Order: sequence, then structure tokens, then C-alpha cells
Amino acid sequence: MVLEIRPMTERDKPAVMAMLRDTPEFKPVEVEVAGELIDAFLDDGLSLGYCLLVGEVDATVAGYICYGPTPITTGTWDVYWMAVSAKAQRHGVGKALLAATEADIKNTGGRLILIETSSKPGYEKAQRFYAKQGYDLVSRITDFYEPGDDKLTYLKRVDIVVTKSQ
Amino acid sequence: MVLEIRPMTERDKPAVMAMLRDTPEFKPVEVEVAGELIDAFLDDGLSLGYCLLVGEVDATVAGYICYGPTPITTGTWDVYWMAVSAKAQRHGVGKALLAATEADIKNTGGRLILIETSSKPGYEKAQRFYAKQGYDLVSRITDFYEPGDDKLTYLKRVDIVVTKSQ
Repeated sequence: MVLEIRPMTERDKPAVMAMLRDTPEFKPVEVEVAGELIDAFLDDGLSLGYCLLVGEVDATVAGYICYGPTPITTGTWDVYWMAVSAKAQRHGVGKALLAATEADIKNTGGRLILIETSSKPGYEKAQRFYAKQGYDLVSRITDFYEPGDDKLTYLKRVDIVVTKSQ
Repeated sequence: MVLEIRPMTERDKPAVMAMLRDTPEFKPVEVEVAGELIDAFLDDGLSLGYCLLVGEVDATVAGYICYGPTPITTGTWDVYWMAVSAKAQRHGVGKALLAATEADIKNTGGRLILIETSSKPGYEKAQRFYAKQGYDLVSRITDFYEPGDDKLTYLKRVDIVVTKSQ
């Protein structure tokens, strides 16, 4: 298996959109917003510091991540969207995409990385994944998305070197 | 004293921008972002459900508020920006602007209203104001804006009738 992480281009869009549509957790309106974000970032996002990466497994797009600096902050970044195809979830694509994102943010002097996600049962896998990658749950806004669907915010500091004893 | 709350128009922009520049808590970059938001909302924001109101005291613009539906939510709204000129802060302009906003959001079936603000000392008056208007502090993200400057999120539910005994 060959895993490659690289910047997303216009040519990847059909594969990424198909992957988003095949993700059962995403509602149609969310897929639509993700698509608009992809268009905006491919058009002129790079000049604003936004970035889109795709992960390929054996030359097939198997995941993507979309991140950028949070407006009106110094050194805070948001991971706006992330998806990995169901088939590729055991191949470390998500982990590699997030690691590449963190390295990039750290290199530009970033301090904090935020990821917002839903509290719904379908998102438990995502929640466990963020926790395992060192993100702390720092905020919960009850009923944010809709009644019964809270917004969870995960945070990782990348400006502090944490030494952990075994 | 005559207090009037009405939708903002293109003609109010110079007065609102002057008020923003005169607000010591706002950094130049924040005034710039507020100006961009005003332009975007005056241009085509109404079609997206965004709204800008101004408050006039004796026919002089003394405050404004900018709010809109939070993307990818059902019934959640954000107050994106709010300012009241220093001279007018004892005339109830802020209270009237927020009350008009809440009534509008409630009428469109809104459930939650969120206001994000800074933890810095200069924002204590704003924090007290939101708390007095019935907003609860539901989230704090440490060092969000910059080191030492946390993001506070205030929330008010407008879908529940609270009966308060005296």
C-alpha cells in the first residue's frame, strides 16, 4: 500500500465530492457547504492561507482535509472539514492528513488548532479519533446544530512541547 | 430623547465606521473586518437572512448590531458585531438593539442566540451587559484570540418561556 499526502487540485474535486456524498454522517446541506468551501479555497483560498490536502491510497483519493487561519486571531487555526472514505479508514489516512496539517500549522507559527464536531452518535468515531491524536474537548454548546445535537470543540496546542513520561 | 431602532442602510455607513474607530476596545483589524461584514451584508446579506440594525438617539446614529443565522444549524443565530458609542451608553441603545434582534430571531423560529466576546479587561462592560440581558457564559476557549485573550461564548435560549417569580 502506498499512502501519499499532497495539496488538493481541481482534478481531485469529483473524487472528493463522491467521497463526501458516500459519508453517511454528512447531511446533503453539509456536503453542499463542503463543496462551496472547496470551490472557494481552490479559487483564491491559498492567498488567504487556506489549505486543502488529499490523501491517496494506491493512487486513489481516500481522504481530504481543509484548514485555515481563524479570522481575528493570532496563531489560531481551524480544521474546517475532514473526511476519509469508509474503505480507507484502517490505513492511517486520517492520521497522516492531520499530522501533515499540524506540521504545516506549526511551521507557520500556529499556536492552537481547533476542530468542531457534532455530539451525535454517528460522530463517536471522529470524537475518539481526535482524542487519540491529542485533542482535548474544551467546549460543548448544547443543542447548537439542532435540538439534541451539540457542538463539541476539540483543541490541540502546537506551541508547547509536552514531555510525557511512560 | 428620542430612541429609534431601524434597519441600517448604505447612508449610515460613515457614521457606523466612525463609531467603530472611536471604540477603544476594537483593534484596527477588527474595525476592518466589521467594515467588510457591513459591506457584504448591505450588498446581498438580506437574501441570506443577515440583518443590520442601527440605533439612533435624537436622529444621530449611536449604535449598531449585526446578526444572522449560523451556517449548518437549525434555529441558531449569531450576533456577529455590536457597538454603542461611548456617549450613548447610558441611554439604553444597546439594550434596545439587542431586544429588537431577539424579537426578530424569535419571530423567524430561532432557538439559540450566541455572542462571542473577548476575556480581556476592556470587555468586562460588554460581559456584564450580556449577562444582564439574560445571556449565559457557556464556553471559554483559552488563548483563542492571542495568548492571554480567551474567547467567551454567551448564549440565550429564545425558544423557552421562562417564568420568573418575583
